[in-house]
Amino acid sequence: MPHIPLPEHLPGITGLLEYRLDTALPIRDLTQILLRGESTLTQGERELIATIVSSRNCTNFCEAAHTKAADMLLGEPETARLVKLDFETAPVSDKMKALLNIAALTQKSGKSVTPEAIERAHQAGATDLEIHDTVLIAALFCLYNKYVDGLATVAPTDPAYYETLGERIVGRGYMRPPGGHQTPKPSEEI
Amino acid sequence: MPHIPLPEHLPGITGLLEYRLDTALPIRDLTQILLRGESTLTQGERELIATIVSSRNCTNFCEAAHTKAADMLLGEPETARLVKLDFETAPVSDKMKALLNIAALTQKSGKSVTPEAIERAHQAGATDLEIHDTVLIAALFCLYNKYVDGLATVAPTDPAYYETLGERIVGRGYMRPPGGHQTPKPSEEI
Repeated sequence: MPHIPLPEHLPGITGLLEYRLDTALPIRDLTQILLRGESTLTQGERELIATIVSSRNCTNFCEAAHTKAADMLLGEPETARLVKLDFETAPVSDKMKALLNIAALTQKSGKSVTPEAIERAHQAGATDLEIHDTVLIAALFCLYNKYVDGLATVAPTDPAYYETLGERIVGRGYMRPPGGHQTPKPSEEI
Repeated sequence: MPHIPLPEHLPGITGLLEYRLDTALPIRDLTQILLRGESTLTQGERELIATIVSSRNCTNFCEAAHTKAADMLLGEPETARLVKLDFETAPVSDKMKALLNIAALTQKSGKSVTPEAIERAHQAGATDLEIHDTVLIAALFCLYNKYVDGLATVAPTDPAYYETLGERIVGRGYMRPPGGHQTPKPSEEI
């Protein structure tokens, strides 16, 4: 049960983003820019960064949602699964391995990101902006994970929920749907 | 030396907020709303939450900056110092002790925030919104700390720097100064 009263039909982050709309807006904006804005990283690659951080923080809701989004954007469910298991042997580019390493280090602590980890990313062709964005996406998902877990929001166990949520994230992005959630319809509540 | 090229005259978070202005805007907005917006917690109390999280993450730049802001808002430097040392014996209200405890638990992991920690805050008179905001401020400063440390930004060692930064944060808040930092003047670069 959540630590504060949240609408039962809006689990995980979705209820929190309706609880305080003024703080939700910049959180949504930042996510939309970083995960859906112009970038030399694909949307699928950026969702993999969100996924590995949420997975390492053991935040079930975020992990399931962003795994599903990554699966849909990549067109198959194996890459995200293998990235979470061991990104070093997962079927991603050397550049993505180096960036996932930076994301995993950031999840532990900002101070864990060593010059060697940065050098590895540069050697694999990563730009400064890609490194910057990787650290900031990882930091943002640590915010999300702490927000979602710190207020004990509920994570649905039905995979169908994340299927629908993944479709919304991929199809519509991270901004609030027009009209918000004031008149929820079961299939549009995410 | 920072992991990516940042202006030398803009240490810590200040250079990062100029590096990518589009992502900086929602980060600034969120901070302004949470730390300076309307709230039943004073601005000084909210700066104490930012301070304890940055201190526990050992992010020198953020710890020094928000300690200074808290000192100025509270009118004395003892409370922030003692809160960082041991908030349970610091000269703050029982409600603030309970909220600082929630912030410290969130810093460790969202899952560390127990129903008992929430019950303690409720018993001490904290509202649901105050609990929500405490968790979100703590999560936001974990983002800041990981961002600042993950890209190895520089933390000035001269206390005078944080004196000036504290004055800016208290006097102007967290939004970008008009005109930004394109034409830096030494006393206005923060």
